[in-house]
Amino acid sequence: MSRLAWEEIAAAREAIEGRAHETPIMTSSTIDGRCGGRVFFKCENLQRTGSFKFRGAMSTIVALTEEARSRGVYAHSSGNHAQALALAAKLHRVPAYLVMPEDSNRRKVEATKGYGAQVTLCRPTYEDRRATAERVGVETGAQLVHSHNDLRVIAGQGTAVCELLDETGDLDLVLAPVGGGGLLSGTVVAAKHLCPGVRVIGCEPAGADDAYRSLQAGELITDFTPETIADGLRTPLGENTFAILSELIDEIVVVPEEEILPAMRFVWERMKLVIEPSSAVAVAPLLTGQIDVTGLRIGVILTGGNVDLDELRLG
Amino acid sequence: MSRLAWEEIAAAREAIEGRAHETPIMTSSTIDGRCGGRVFFKCENLQRTGSFKFRGAMSTIVALTEEARSRGVYAHSSGNHAQALALAAKLHRVPAYLVMPEDSNRRKVEATKGYGAQVTLCRPTYEDRRATAERVGVETGAQLVHSHNDLRVIAGQGTAVCELLDETGDLDLVLAPVGGGGLLSGTVVAAKHLCPGVRVIGCEPAGADDAYRSLQAGELITDFTPETIADGLRTPLGENTFAILSELIDEIVVVPEEEILPAMRFVWERMKLVIEPSSAVAVAPLLTGQIDVTGLRIGVILTGGNVDLDELRLG
Repeated sequence: MSRLAWEEIAAAREAIEGRAHETPIMTSSTIDGRCGGRVFFKCENLQRTGSFKFRGAMSTIVALTEEARSRGVYAHSSGNHAQALALAAKLHRVPAYLVMPEDSNRRKVEATKGYGAQVTLCRPTYEDRRATAERVGVETGAQLVHSHNDLRVIAGQGTAVCELLDETGDLDLVLAPVGGGGLLSGTVVAAKHLCPGVRVIGCEPAGADDAYRSLQAGELITDFTPETIADGLRTPLGENTFAILSELIDEIVVVPEEEILPAMRFVWERMKLVIEPSSAVAVAPLLTGQIDVTGLRIGVILTGGNVDLDELRLG
Repeated sequence: MSRLAWEEIAAAREAIEGRAHETPIMTSSTIDGRCGGRVFFKCENLQRTGSFKFRGAMSTIVALTEEARSRGVYAHSSGNHAQALALAAKLHRVPAYLVMPEDSNRRKVEATKGYGAQVTLCRPTYEDRRATAERVGVETGAQLVHSHNDLRVIAGQGTAVCELLDETGDLDLVLAPVGGGGLLSGTVVAAKHLCPGVRVIGCEPAGADDAYRSLQAGELITDFTPETIADGLRTPLGENTFAILSELIDEIVVVPEEEILPAMRFVWERMKLVIEPSSAVAVAPLLTGQIDVTGLRIGVILTGGNVDLDELRLG
């Protein structure tokens, strides 16, 4: 019995209906030709705030009691969860307190403030993020909405693959990136319920392969220094995501760092979609043949599109 | 009586059904908030070959006689029309001969060859393009499919706004970029038929404002040297597009060059869509307030997404 029941994902889906975008699904004959399968891309880069994180943030906010809403929510995040929680909270007039490391992307900090959240900067270590967040929680009396270990959030993230399967029908394989594991956990619970024969594979960057190593070791590894271009995937698994993935996931593949940007660029050029490096981690194995998908129908979740064009020296 | 009848656009729409993508329509609350209207973006950057040009190329190829198909088609083009005609021809096993200026984007030349077309390079002047194309036409006996002055092509380009209006219902205003005027001409004929009260405005870059000046002068101006970042809009109007626009278009606005790249970047960052500078010419006036759209429902055709990421110094 998994820690997350299908019914919680179904409830989250109802909660976000009309509040989150039902994002488009795209195909590319170029990519199909290259990998030999039929690939359906769920475009969460086109989700509100530019990533799937809005799903879990919104489903959690919607389900809060009146009393909890009045006290507000808090979290620590370097980017996508911060923006998502800030906007979801704003739309329901819930105060939001976000702790962000001081080396966060300036635009993400600005966007989070722009949604009306109160932002506290902290030192860029996971310990200081947690310590600062705890202090903010105590001071404000707000409720923690953890970016990837909160079961309500995980349930919300599981709604993306529901929409995907609704449109495509049965798939042989679903690929999603894994960082903290919230998206992958929600995805595997939902996908295996809706399409029992489907395989679900997590794609993890080589520079932060803690999920792969944790599942191999059979215990949660959190003590590591991530060195990956995929800035959305630097966080370790949480206890809940570790437990869910241990039980249900078919495989984690570790994607070499040098294959991430070429895959990102391929999607920009060929599909005309701006995706961030974290999204490309689930595309690269199709382009390089690391996962053999010949003759298969594959779903891929393009998780987000929040890149800093300045850092990419554009324009 | 316009040179192009609505019935020809309706026929083109039937011809491309199932052959061209019915591209998605996107909205952005950020852009709505900024311009004060409700904007619907028709995403032709997500069309096959990366631009709306595939519509006109495909509708023209489909309508060829067997005999014409066997002899093939030719055209001169620096990019998007070349790729579009090459793929449409390939899909119907029609030989395609493309004349491309030697300073064309390398990737566009490669893509055109990749679709099996025979490419002849020429000097980068409009005269040499035409002269070389004429020679290719004589040598091969193929049929000319002009990129923007061919009425069959113009009819095909008009199908994009049909799909847009089908989904949005009546609009107050439609914006499209103008270069050779094929898209704008097809758009104005289709839009005024389907939605008689709609205003249609062409958006032209300041560095190639021949359409604006031609309509002002009441005669076709073709003798000018374009100097615009919007590389898809450097060609002059043709006789047919000049006649159609003279009769039907409500207005041409001239967009300052320095506003084009910021608008492009805005769409990349906020909408996560890769568009080329030519597309951004129809977005900029919404962001700068050059066109007042307060309280209006506006359709914008995002014409293409074929940018060279190398030139933009990305990654």
